[in-house]
Amino acid sequence: MDRIDNRKHDQLREITILRNYTKYAPGSVLIKMGDTIVLCTASYENKVPAFKKDTGEGWLTAEYAMLPSSTQKRNVRDISKLKLSGRSSEIQRLIGRALRSMVDLTKLGENTIIIDCDVLQADGGTRCASIIGAAVALCDCVGQMLKDGVILENPIKSMTAAVSVGKVSGELLLDLCYEEDSNADADINVVMNDNFEFIEIQGTSEKDTFTFDELNSLLNLAKKGLEEIFKIQKAVLSEGIVESENNLRDQQQGENI
Amino acid sequence: MDRIDNRKHDQLREITILRNYTKYAPGSVLIKMGDTIVLCTASYENKVPAFKKDTGEGWLTAEYAMLPSSTQKRNVRDISKLKLSGRSSEIQRLIGRALRSMVDLTKLGENTIIIDCDVLQADGGTRCASIIGAAVALCDCVGQMLKDGVILENPIKSMTAAVSVGKVSGELLLDLCYEEDSNADADINVVMNDNFEFIEIQGTSEKDTFTFDELNSLLNLAKKGLEEIFKIQKAVLSEGIVESENNLRDQQQGENI
Amino acid sequence: MDRIDNRKHDQLREITILRNYTKYAPGSVLIKMGDTIVLCTASYENKVPAFKKDTGEGWLTAEYAMLPSSTQKRNVRDISKLKLSGRSSEIQRLIGRALRSMVDLTKLGENTIIIDCDVLQADGGTRCASIIGAAVALCDCVGQMLKDGVILENPIKSMTAAVSVGKVSGELLLDLCYEEDSNADADINVVMNDNFEFIEIQGTSEKDTFTFDELNSLLNLAKKGLEEIFKIQKAVLSEGIVESENNLRDQQQGENI
Amino acid sequence: MDRIDNRKHDQLREITILRNYTKYAPGSVLIKMGDTIVLCTASYENKVPAFKKDTGEGWLTAEYAMLPSSTQKRNVRDISKLKLSGRSSEIQRLIGRALRSMVDLTKLGENTIIIDCDVLQADGGTRCASIIGAAVALCDCVGQMLKDGVILENPIKSMTAAVSVGKVSGELLLDLCYEEDSNADADINVVMNDNFEFIEIQGTSEKDTFTFDELNSLLNLAKKGLEEIFKIQKAVLSEGIVESENNLRDQQQGENI
Amino acid sequence: MDRIDNRKHDQLREITILRNYTKYAPGSVLIKMGDTIVLCTASYENKVPAFKKDTGEGWLTAEYAMLPSSTQKRNVRDISKLKLSGRSSEIQRLIGRALRSMVDLTKLGENTIIIDCDVLQADGGTRCASIIGAAVALCDCVGQMLKDGVILENPIKSMTAAVSVGKVSGELLLDLCYEEDSNADADINVVMNDNFEFIEIQGTSEKDTFTFDELNSLLNLAKKGLEEIFKIQKAVLSEGIVESENNLRDQQQGENI
Amino acid sequence: MDRIDNRKHDQLREITILRNYTKYAPGSVLIKMGDTIVLCTASYENKVPAFKKDTGEGWLTAEYAMLPSSTQKRNVRDISKLKLSGRSSEIQRLIGRALRSMVDLTKLGENTIIIDCDVLQADGGTRCASIIGAAVALCDCVGQMLKDGVILENPIKSMTAAVSVGKVSGELLLDLCYEEDSNADADINVVMNDNFEFIEIQGTSEKDTFTFDELNSLLNLAKKGLEEIFKIQKAVLSEGIVESENNLRDQQQGENI
Repeated sequence: MDRIDNRKHDQLREITILRNYTKYAPGSVLIKMGDTIVLCTASYENKVPAFKKDTGEGWLTAEYAMLPSSTQKRNVRDISKLKLSGRSSEIQRLIGRALRSMVDLTKLGENTIIIDCDVLQADGGTRCASIIGAAVALCDCVGQMLKDGVILENPIKSMTAAVSVGKVSGELLLDLCYEEDSNADADINVVMNDNFEFIEIQGTSEKDTFTFDELNSLLNLAKKGLEEIFKIQKAVLSEGIVESENNLRDQQQGENI
Repeated sequence: MDRIDNRKHDQLREITILRNYTKYAPGSVLIKMGDTIVLCTASYENKVPAFKKDTGEGWLTAEYAMLPSSTQKRNVRDISKLKLSGRSSEIQRLIGRALRSMVDLTKLGENTIIIDCDVLQADGGTRCASIIGAAVALCDCVGQMLKDGVILENPIKSMTAAVSVGKVSGELLLDLCYEEDSNADADINVVMNDNFEFIEIQGTSEKDTFTFDELNSLLNLAKKGLEEIFKIQKAVLSEGIVESENNLRDQQQGENI
Repeated sequence: MDRIDNRKHDQLREITILRNYTKYAPGSVLIKMGDTIVLCTASYENKVPAFKKDTGEGWLTAEYAMLPSSTQKRNVRDISKLKLSGRSSEIQRLIGRALRSMVDLTKLGENTIIIDCDVLQADGGTRCASIIGAAVALCDCVGQMLKDGVILENPIKSMTAAVSVGKVSGELLLDLCYEEDSNADADINVVMNDNFEFIEIQGTSEKDTFTFDELNSLLNLAKKGLEEIFKIQKAVLSEGIVESENNLRDQQQGENI
Repeated sequence: MDRIDNRKHDQLREITILRNYTKYAPGSVLIKMGDTIVLCTASYENKVPAFKKDTGEGWLTAEYAMLPSSTQKRNVRDISKLKLSGRSSEIQRLIGRALRSMVDLTKLGENTIIIDCDVLQADGGTRCASIIGAAVALCDCVGQMLKDGVILENPIKSMTAAVSVGKVSGELLLDLCYEEDSNADADINVVMNDNFEFIEIQGTSEKDTFTFDELNSLLNLAKKGLEEIFKIQKAVLSEGIVESENNLRDQQQGENI
Repeated sequence: MDRIDNRKHDQLREITILRNYTKYAPGSVLIKMGDTIVLCTASYENKVPAFKKDTGEGWLTAEYAMLPSSTQKRNVRDISKLKLSGRSSEIQRLIGRALRSMVDLTKLGENTIIIDCDVLQADGGTRCASIIGAAVALCDCVGQMLKDGVILENPIKSMTAAVSVGKVSGELLLDLCYEEDSNADADINVVMNDNFEFIEIQGTSEKDTFTFDELNSLLNLAKKGLEEIFKIQKAVLSEGIVESENNLRDQQQGENI
Repeated sequence: MDRIDNRKHDQLREITILRNYTKYAPGSVLIKMGDTIVLCTASYENKVPAFKKDTGEGWLTAEYAMLPSSTQKRNVRDISKLKLSGRSSEIQRLIGRALRSMVDLTKLGENTIIIDCDVLQADGGTRCASIIGAAVALCDCVGQMLKDGVILENPIKSMTAAVSVGKVSGELLLDLCYEEDSNADADINVVMNDNFEFIEIQGTSEKDTFTFDELNSLLNLAKKGLEEIFKIQKAVLSEGIVESENNLRDQQQGENI
């Protein structure tokens, strides 16, 4: 079977991660994974939610939303319906859990890190792209907190990344795009740390089911993809937290006019 | 390690399923799983959501809520906050997907089945108990639809059940109660059909992580639990859809006063 | 005229009150009044609303809701409409006033008792059943508060109960079921204390009107019903607050499977 | 006991009813009852709510609100809290029932009359003033509907009015002002038609209770007040529906500047 | 061109301003501008919003709403839609800015003044009438604050008023009524202080556009109107803040019945 | 006075407009105006709001929002507060009016164009940047509608653009950045068409006021800025509507990793 974009069954889409994409949030990353584009930012504030008060520990929370124009058919804003969509609610809880697994909350002090993942263009895998990008933004935010003297010790325990795998027309595929995802018999989102231990698995199969064997094959496929993704994350982070030249503002000036 | 309620590591809590528990919904099941108690009902209506109109197919949707008094500390009603809680949103989407997997939507006609899972008492595993109970209620609802002539053919493809497994203090346990769940390093909710194929896996590990080997052990533990649960569901259903004697109204009269 | 369920015009439906029905709330009562079933719980918290702060007095508030499957036609959840239904709002204010009349707020200290009445099955008279059941739950909650040392003196001033009476096809009837209520020319909900003084009267007559004489006859009918209800409440309460054997969890085990 | 405004125990406050108070709604009445001032309007539209569709019958619904500045302490707008206050909800349901009792819905055709009662100044008895004023506005609206040819036959069955009575420091009083109402042991709102049959009774007693005898005395006191109110309503209506000179716009011009 | 109400192109509608219109708010003004009628009140409270805390300065905020019956076609209440209308939101922000320009916030102390503008009848120019009336109510409120000792120095810097001008069928007109406003090619709301400096200009032209020259002519027309309006405001205020005889309650008694 | 970014008093910030920025919306423009970055998209749907039904005319509506991370201090999402912010509400109404002025609605047929302006980074002037960018996106959307055969004739009447001018420390400046805007005594947003006629003027002055003369100087400054902006818009549009190379996806690939 040929994939719609000519990838091999175990091939990731091209991933680009731009750090310091916008200028206010201490962590601000634009991630592109094929045609999926997500702006992931990490900010912090010097307070914690009620259930963490007086514990000496911090917290990390995440929010996820899609711009109205990010989907094939324009999607109505949540505020117009006065309801956070169930899908967004489910995804932002997943992102929150995945990112919290990176952080030793006891080393955060009573501070809260807020992850915002806003999808500019959705072509499948937005929750995975969000986690990959937000993990980088989180590192930058923590770097800023150290610089600001808000925390004294690095609370990052491990790197985290996510990828989707699925069964499409009987074939097992890595990193589904929207077209593949809509036709998948079953798909699994796998979140791992860089020791290749599981943080989260979310497998679902509305059209078909999957067996133990298929599960294991899919998880191995995911592991292969995550190995590459961790390399990309680390490469991006190793460039150092400089006022990089690659942010949107500088990079594109003069190109168009 | 001794479990808090003296169960063996691979032992389910006692499960009781009462059919025809209330009198209006065509499917109405009270499920007790240890101290977790959920009222699961299935109703139908002769219309479908906009995205299914003129497709000739039906739909199934689910809602989940906890009574304020169902938890150790009284929980505030969603309507008081004007927001469906993120947790409820996530769980009702899971229940919806799990139950839809049982049904051939093309055989439903343009009808919608609505599953309501209302937790009367929560002691861990409410989403699994909801799925187990709702699967029985769904069968009863479908029975009524056939009797009412709304559908002509049984759309049920398979039975569905769910169970939680988890790693608590390093030990792998089946069917976590609330106390165990709150201390779990990692826990997985497994939804399978009665061919023991996966419908959904949701594994999460905020405190610790889990390895490939642990995952496989946990899934096997889940499979063992699901074997027993499918037997209970089938035993309950094989009693036939009679105006059973065992509903709350009749059974308890005279006992108290 | 024969009543639909063969009762005499001045006959109550059978009432069953189960205490300690669920395990977390200090007062938890399941009341069945014919086919009307309501779970009434009473919880307390160590704070008061703003308007009672620094008064040394406590408060009691009530919430009322119907499960979606409790009615003949499934009713949509309030949270789906983002609005508390006007009917629920009206009823929970009535329950609050009725139950507050039982309590000497000056003896409560700055604590709030929260009454939750959740209708599992509605066959008319849900607001009256709620008040009857909640009065018992309130006593149990107060018992727990005394045991917990939160209050030192019993704040209960009197017992409270409620019953509906109505004019149906010209005949005066006690304790209307849904079928009768929908056809009533006029109906009155009467709340009294056990000295047979009025706490609240809510009489309404959309189809017809009622005269002074009919009002007096109806109130006397209500009084007769309330005499019996107070006996049932007291019988149930005189059993003592034991970890009773009659709660749902224990009572029904083994019966079904 | 002297009443705060020197009235006798069975004396109404001065009532002024201005018809055609604003110019758009077909019925528009400003009612002043002592210092309580309510703008009551009645509008109609050529459609009915879903539950009345294809019945050939009409409907009447009511809404009630207080301006922020109408109370001693400014009250926050409902829209700022995104919730209709429970009290408003309860009152507008009462007004709706009271006004519906005036109308033969089968003669309305599939039209809906909307009553709006907006309190400009609240000094006790706002729900009663609303009903008195809205009854007049309803007559004017029906007059307009007949003129517009929307209905062919007058659907008004009877006149409706309401008054409060209460027990204050042991004394029975007619038409409580705010000061009296806040100190009342018990108070009853009585809605009657002009045959002096009951439409609605709402008696409540948070501080004290009331006996059968007191109830009867209070109802007789209410009847006396309602006799006077019906006379005022009829006097106002007998002036004919002219483009009256007494509306706010004309009446006050030139007086101030 | 003849104006619909026979005014000259540069003629204001008749303006009536009644102070102390209702009795609770320290500033309470009914303004009539032709057939537009707005109740403008000013209240104060001894606290400030979060962003002003510990600044020693006060704040002024405004709310604007239309009664459902104030418009030709009854308008649905915001609370029924759970959304503040965009138009109301825009207008109340304008009123807030206009009124804040009158006040030296540093002389207010940490107090907040709340302006409420509730439209009883809308015939064009409601935002201008609101500003004119609220400016008078604000003066009365400040007078009360001085009397109450809440502030020690008068914080009023200048008087503020507003008027609309527009281009209708090519002609430039002052103070548009609804009929004119709906047909205007362009209209401008001009807010000035009594030194005839601009506080706010809001010009909009959906149907047509306007040129620099037209803008200047329109602004001069506005200035002419504002000169008259300032005179009216000052005349009304110079009457002194007495418990005036001209409030609604006293003035209209006996006129109607 | 030196401007914070060394611009001359009548100098615009650098403007970059990228067409076809995302791939789904028929018009999709990223505009950068200094450090202000807005994604402006234009979509269409084949229906109109209720008030335009059966008129044969179309409609254009706009929505505006800021990403949480777009501001110096993270701003809370509207959906978390269940309220569209007053500021957003005001701005999106302005954008809607400005963009509608470009279109002959009678040539649109019964279609609705939806403009979405989502601010990625806010450094002052977001409403002006939104209008400039959305005007280009609107042209692209109309181009697509013509290509799709949804409309047969180009409905664009003129080009529209906006710019802010203000008085800062007494000096008159063009195109205020955030720092300047927060310190402005007065600022005016001017929307004009390319015949330099006014579409909208919104001038406001909370700190200080402005005179007739200052107004005219500011409007001339705005006109100068708008002349340049129209040139930029036209240059961008004259490149033709090709599947341009300059969208985000292609342009940045390979740059970072």
